[in-house]
Amino acid sequence: MIMKALVYHGPGKISWDEKPRPTVQEATDAIVRITTTTVCGSDLHILKGDVPEVAAGRILGHEAIGIVEEVGAGVQAFKKGDKVIVSCITSCAKCDFCRKAMYSHCRRGGWILGHSIDGTQADYARIPYADTSLHALPEGGDEEALVMLSDIIPTGFECGVLNGRVQPGDSVAIVGAGPVGLAALLTARLYSPSQLIVIDQDENRLTAAKSLGATRTINSADGQAAEKVSTLTGGMGADVVIEAVGLPATFELCQQLVAPGGRIANIGVHGKSATLHLETLWCRNVTLTTRLVDTATTPMLLKAVLSGLIDPKGLVSHRFPLADAMKAYDIFANAAREKALKLILTAH
Amino acid sequence: MIMKALVYHGPGKISWDEKPRPTVQEATDAIVRITTTTVCGSDLHILKGDVPEVAAGRILGHEAIGIVEEVGAGVQAFKKGDKVIVSCITSCAKCDFCRKAMYSHCRRGGWILGHSIDGTQADYARIPYADTSLHALPEGGDEEALVMLSDIIPTGFECGVLNGRVQPGDSVAIVGAGPVGLAALLTARLYSPSQLIVIDQDENRLTAAKSLGATRTINSADGQAAEKVSTLTGGMGADVVIEAVGLPATFELCQQLVAPGGRIANIGVHGKSATLHLETLWCRNVTLTTRLVDTATTPMLLKAVLSGLIDPKGLVSHRFPLADAMKAYDIFANAAREKALKLILTAH
Amino acid sequence: MIMKALVYHGPGKISWDEKPRPTVQEATDAIVRITTTTVCGSDLHILKGDVPEVAAGRILGHEAIGIVEEVGAGVQAFKKGDKVIVSCITSCAKCDFCRKAMYSHCRRGGWILGHSIDGTQADYARIPYADTSLHALPEGGDEEALVMLSDIIPTGFECGVLNGRVQPGDSVAIVGAGPVGLAALLTARLYSPSQLIVIDQDENRLTAAKSLGATRTINSADGQAAEKVSTLTGGMGADVVIEAVGLPATFELCQQLVAPGGRIANIGVHGKSATLHLETLWCRNVTLTTRLVDTATTPMLLKAVLSGLIDPKGLVSHRFPLADAMKAYDIFANAAREKALKLILTAH
Amino acid sequence: MIMKALVYHGPGKISWDEKPRPTVQEATDAIVRITTTTVCGSDLHILKGDVPEVAAGRILGHEAIGIVEEVGAGVQAFKKGDKVIVSCITSCAKCDFCRKAMYSHCRRGGWILGHSIDGTQADYARIPYADTSLHALPEGGDEEALVMLSDIIPTGFECGVLNGRVQPGDSVAIVGAGPVGLAALLTARLYSPSQLIVIDQDENRLTAAKSLGATRTINSADGQAAEKVSTLTGGMGADVVIEAVGLPATFELCQQLVAPGGRIANIGVHGKSATLHLETLWCRNVTLTTRLVDTATTPMLLKAVLSGLIDPKGLVSHRFPLADAMKAYDIFANAAREKALKLILTAH
Repeated sequence: MIMKALVYHGPGKISWDEKPRPTVQEATDAIVRITTTTVCGSDLHILKGDVPEVAAGRILGHEAIGIVEEVGAGVQAFKKGDKVIVSCITSCAKCDFCRKAMYSHCRRGGWILGHSIDGTQADYARIPYADTSLHALPEGGDEEALVMLSDIIPTGFECGVLNGRVQPGDSVAIVGAGPVGLAALLTARLYSPSQLIVIDQDENRLTAAKSLGATRTINSADGQAAEKVSTLTGGMGADVVIEAVGLPATFELCQQLVAPGGRIANIGVHGKSATLHLETLWCRNVTLTTRLVDTATTPMLLKAVLSGLIDPKGLVSHRFPLADAMKAYDIFANAAREKALKLILTAH
Repeated sequence: MIMKALVYHGPGKISWDEKPRPTVQEATDAIVRITTTTVCGSDLHILKGDVPEVAAGRILGHEAIGIVEEVGAGVQAFKKGDKVIVSCITSCAKCDFCRKAMYSHCRRGGWILGHSIDGTQADYARIPYADTSLHALPEGGDEEALVMLSDIIPTGFECGVLNGRVQPGDSVAIVGAGPVGLAALLTARLYSPSQLIVIDQDENRLTAAKSLGATRTINSADGQAAEKVSTLTGGMGADVVIEAVGLPATFELCQQLVAPGGRIANIGVHGKSATLHLETLWCRNVTLTTRLVDTATTPMLLKAVLSGLIDPKGLVSHRFPLADAMKAYDIFANAAREKALKLILTAH
Repeated sequence: MIMKALVYHGPGKISWDEKPRPTVQEATDAIVRITTTTVCGSDLHILKGDVPEVAAGRILGHEAIGIVEEVGAGVQAFKKGDKVIVSCITSCAKCDFCRKAMYSHCRRGGWILGHSIDGTQADYARIPYADTSLHALPEGGDEEALVMLSDIIPTGFECGVLNGRVQPGDSVAIVGAGPVGLAALLTARLYSPSQLIVIDQDENRLTAAKSLGATRTINSADGQAAEKVSTLTGGMGADVVIEAVGLPATFELCQQLVAPGGRIANIGVHGKSATLHLETLWCRNVTLTTRLVDTATTPMLLKAVLSGLIDPKGLVSHRFPLADAMKAYDIFANAAREKALKLILTAH
Repeated sequence: MIMKALVYHGPGKISWDEKPRPTVQEATDAIVRITTTTVCGSDLHILKGDVPEVAAGRILGHEAIGIVEEVGAGVQAFKKGDKVIVSCITSCAKCDFCRKAMYSHCRRGGWILGHSIDGTQADYARIPYADTSLHALPEGGDEEALVMLSDIIPTGFECGVLNGRVQPGDSVAIVGAGPVGLAALLTARLYSPSQLIVIDQDENRLTAAKSLGATRTINSADGQAAEKVSTLTGGMGADVVIEAVGLPATFELCQQLVAPGGRIANIGVHGKSATLHLETLWCRNVTLTTRLVDTATTPMLLKAVLSGLIDPKGLVSHRFPLADAMKAYDIFANAAREKALKLILTAH
């Protein structure tokens, strides 16, 4: 059977193509009919050719909500008709990494959707290890809010907030107010920091940050961000600094912002090495972390969304029919001009 | 009254001089007659001129055992005649950093001995905030072993082992087998790692490492250290990597050695920035820490030495009378040639 | 000089007496002129004779805000005229317990105010170890809100919330809606639990709990609390159960409420032993904690109040002039009838 | 096909019977030919009738080493001929509890072997969820040592040592020197406590404790154990107290032994409730834990055994052919008289 899907044909080339509908290949697979999906910054990276392991012909996308169409014989938790959130990380649940809840490094999964196997920007997707890679969508859950649990909300939370060990009363500085920085902002509030300072050069994004709970925003275009954070924190620096850009320059800024005893939590996808100022940091009792999202906290985050503690819907800026996926990519590629944050694609 | 002391007179210049005996200046001071002291790598850094904030005329040294000669009116825990270990870190106990057990950043203390005030390579030393900067030396304690609690043992333990979160069964790689690397080795064993791999280019030091409990040593001169650690760890890399050198190249090596989910704990004093390979580390769930020793664990380490769990005496390579301090500096400045680790200076 | 103070004269007997104004006795003392104080449940325990170590003649009270009148020579952080919060726990900062931030067990302090030395329900009070037993009251801070930082807010937070390890998304059940249970409720919200269930038999207090953020209240008079919590938590029980009463029966209820893997955090002051149902709990992976407040988190809680994250003013039910302290005790002794929570006593 | 097995026929009745050989029932099953097994204290509890949910006809036993005979279609990690350690806890890896590494409460597994399904004291056993309930036995591993990883070593470690948060330098008191207390003793040493005090009334077991690393043993028959521990710890009490008996009296003793700020970790299987002295403990900052072993640490413990950090072979007191299982039960039922610790049953 035939379906439509967003297909990568090599650097700079995608199209909305006909593809065969996926079928169950392993007993642990589920086939999901996609109802809502979205476009991620890493999809753009692939499109630029920055992720060479993605083969031409690959269906992109790793975030989605959908309805289970069919399950393999080994799937116990889901059945045809169940509404589910697709996790961007596939977890076999059985390998050494999965047993440590480090699903990002699962020896049979990890980030494979829209990467080493076909993804979710399609009418249907095959989800391996469905029992531990899907989450039941509760009755009445808002799809636009909950599709953010596929990737961006756990990414901001795990890589930024948990790794940064945000604690009540902390001062937190987030460098980068794109979707992932804003996801860190939303979820940092779960730990009640006393200051949530967001730094970017795009005024639209800083305005969004303000509306999502930043206690202060700083436009870093003037090169004064470090001084301003120092002033706001009484000369101490921020207890937690979250890097949500992925460039050497922003990573260096983070080192200037952090207080003695503080934490720098990197979320950004870096294409280049950066300079680490050990000549000043060696004696400052600083912790620096990196992480690919494990989506280990998705069940907790789902409770947080359902009980109203966080509202990821504020990240949505644009909405399209799934069939207009090409247009969505276009808008997202010009995010600053288009004031784009997260774009929702909905099947009809 | 006059005493003798090792005095810094600017880069490259030290001498064994007459100096006035220190006296109580604040109610919280103690004057300690030094019985045992030692020379630290940072003393050599000062001598080279790498620590410009040290003024000419300064008495060096921040490690010692001695006998309390006099105490100020506010000292409650010690009295004349008490035998004490001098901590290299002075803690007022009252500031915000001290209340977080981050004594290294004490607003009235921190590393001041032999740095911003006169130190311990002398007949007598003034110790501010004596109640919380000295530790009672238990009856019958071995001075040569216990003087290592002034600095090097807590440094290896706190900056390397605790920050690296060494756990039973872990594979640990220590880069650098100088005194501080060996202190990390000795104290890592408190947590029962299954592998303790020590890496250096000096065969004498690797031999010392072996005798102090390394399960494996690697001479990195051939540039194959990363491959060897990979093989020893079944391709995973080390759970914990401890940097105990302080150079860009060794810090880069650490990044090659670490397993996904692993920790890099920096102990080394770095004079230059280093390259951080975020282009590979961003998704490897790695934690990197820096720390100036807080000596917050000295009471525990004292128990560990007294109960025989660690024996720091194995770090001692040379012994001198205190009056031969100049000779000790000479030997220590040629540590490789002289096979020098820690040098004991004893008053007679 | 003479002042007025609330004096305990043995079980059942207190009066508003003339007493000599306290003076500096140790270099580390401060004398504080009390501007705001309050009455604690433990003051009533003393009055009943339940705390026999309190001698007749003792001035009661361990919570206050005031103005520093005089300091000893060793006090560094405060001077005459400074506005301060008095901590209910006195910390010498130097003993082994203080170095572990377990100030409640300070070998020279702990709970001594209004217990083993004179307290704060008076015109003036002597505060030993002032540098580490007082906190500067920030300009413009609300005294009624901030006097809650003397005891009740850190008690609810440290003994209930921190010991219970409340985490985002958790279900939390608080047994007892008196002032300390409500303090646990207010501060539990700092960690964003998804459910905050408060259980009591007093409808007024349950109403107060609702207004302070309880997601659900249960009147346990009908003996159905355990069933109701089970239903609310999908049969799991609560992740965290906080005991804020101090009776065998409420402690037993807590054991019925807790989920496998959950925590029971005791705050209640118990006069009797209780039954621990190890025959069911032994295999349920439960953690049970006790704690006397350390007030180690007061600096953080101060930031949380000032930034609006918690508003302890909601705990205030009655206000009196300090000179009417006897009347306040009367009201508080009939708390249920009088709908009393925390009573504010203000000097004029 | 027929095999032999130790079958429970109701309280007081077991026999060595012919039973049908188990076969694969689910795709995730493995059939294991047992080469080594042992008898656990809980097997005796079942025999006494204390575990009424065990049905007559049940094959007992939940500890074993064996060789995989057959696997279901869904088993990925094991194949016929693999040598394996059988975990006493069966983990589906997919339920909410398994995803939190709390396998003891696995919704499809947990303690089922020799409990709700047939066990390992037999020629063959069926192991559900084989991928995550078996562990590969490394080439050349000692079966007598490694069969202790089925249950007793992880039990002592997880319920006693990990839950008690044993840290370097700690004083640890273990109440009960039976097999599980000795397993806690062996594994506590992984964290280098400075004191390991073992308390029992059986001199043979205390002698065993001494040979396995106890720094001190106390025969509690004279009722002086609490005083002795107090003396040994300078009046503080033990930092960690491990209950390894399961009786109200020994649990009460634990409460007397614990230091302020200390932990009581219960391992014992309790048939009755116990008295908790909250009237003294409420203000002593104590943590009390219970746990059914999760066997989540088996991979680490396996590394610790293979690298020689712990040697569980010291727990073995008797050896029998598997066919003499009835005799082994007899000896174990009179453990004190027979000086029995762990009994090895080997297939020939």
